[in-house]
Amino acid sequence: MMNADITAQAEQIVGLIINAWKNQNKQVSQYFSQYPADLYASEIAPGRNRASYLLGHLIAVNDGMIPLFGFGEKLFPDLEEIFLRNPDRAVSEVHSIDQLKAYWERLNQTLQAHFDSMSVDQWLDRHTAVSPEDFALTPSRNKLNVLLSRTTHQAYHIGQLKLLKGG
Amino acid sequence: MMNADITAQAEQIVGLIINAWKNQNKQVSQYFSQYPADLYASEIAPGRNRASYLLGHLIAVNDGMIPLFGFGEKLFPDLEEIFLRNPDRAVSEVHSIDQLKAYWERLNQTLQAHFDSMSVDQWLDRHTAVSPEDFALTPSRNKLNVLLSRTTHQAYHIGQLKLLKGG
Repeated sequence: MMNADITAQAEQIVGLIINAWKNQNKQVSQYFSQYPADLYASEIAPGRNRASYLLGHLIAVNDGMIPLFGFGEKLFPDLEEIFLRNPDRAVSEVHSIDQLKAYWERLNQTLQAHFDSMSVDQWLDRHTAVSPEDFALTPSRNKLNVLLSRTTHQAYHIGQLKLLKGG
Repeated sequence: MMNADITAQAEQIVGLIINAWKNQNKQVSQYFSQYPADLYASEIAPGRNRASYLLGHLIAVNDGMIPLFGFGEKLFPDLEEIFLRNPDRAVSEVHSIDQLKAYWERLNQTLQAHFDSMSVDQWLDRHTAVSPEDFALTPSRNKLNVLLSRTTHQAYHIGQLKLLKGG
């Protein structure tokens, strides 16, 4: 096999992962545009998170990839306190569902622009939360693995969202 | 970069995906061993699937990878009618939760043994549900992409299972 073909394999596989990520993003976007805005203030199951909280949570978690991948500062650091450090309803509501939806789309565009410019070497390089020494011992602590884990995290919450109305 | 290093990259990335798959498997196994057997007969949310149905569903879906990857026949073809073609409670109960748990472990071991012996080329080859002609047009219809999609499918249902008791 030619050298170029082998490089192409790694690139192809990274492409599959990015695509899996995009598919989960799309499902979230579709879910939050298919019902009237009021519905998203409902709990996904009795006593459980509201759909709107889960959207804020997904934004806050995914936004963490910006500093983790060394792209810069979080776009929406104010979501952290409400949607990451606290459970639903613990902090008083300040974002409308439309605002969260706009944040979601802006975040996805920002992340995608970065992802599209990354080489396989960059994907397999360490993220900023692991030291060079620890990374030498555990090379799986790379950016691509974070993206994989963010992808399954998204699927996990989509499964829950779908319990609310149809699914 | 050396040829061997480049091959290693593709192998490393396949390893990350297999690991993500295993992690989801482990979460399902842990979930179904942490509570008394009775609990799994409960619905994950009012009027929704019972936890036991979701376990049968995950086995039936994952079992489909055996013929899809050309490994042979499904281990548990009798689950198809109950857990794939019909919704929960449509077909009368024939499997105990302990039986399903044993199926689950046996299926994971069988799949894992096959996965561990596969090369990157084999992962990137077509699965049996796509013709050579279609595969030439859409090379993403490969086995690795199926495994990725089964991984997010599992995460989707784990998110739902976790709504039942704690989580």
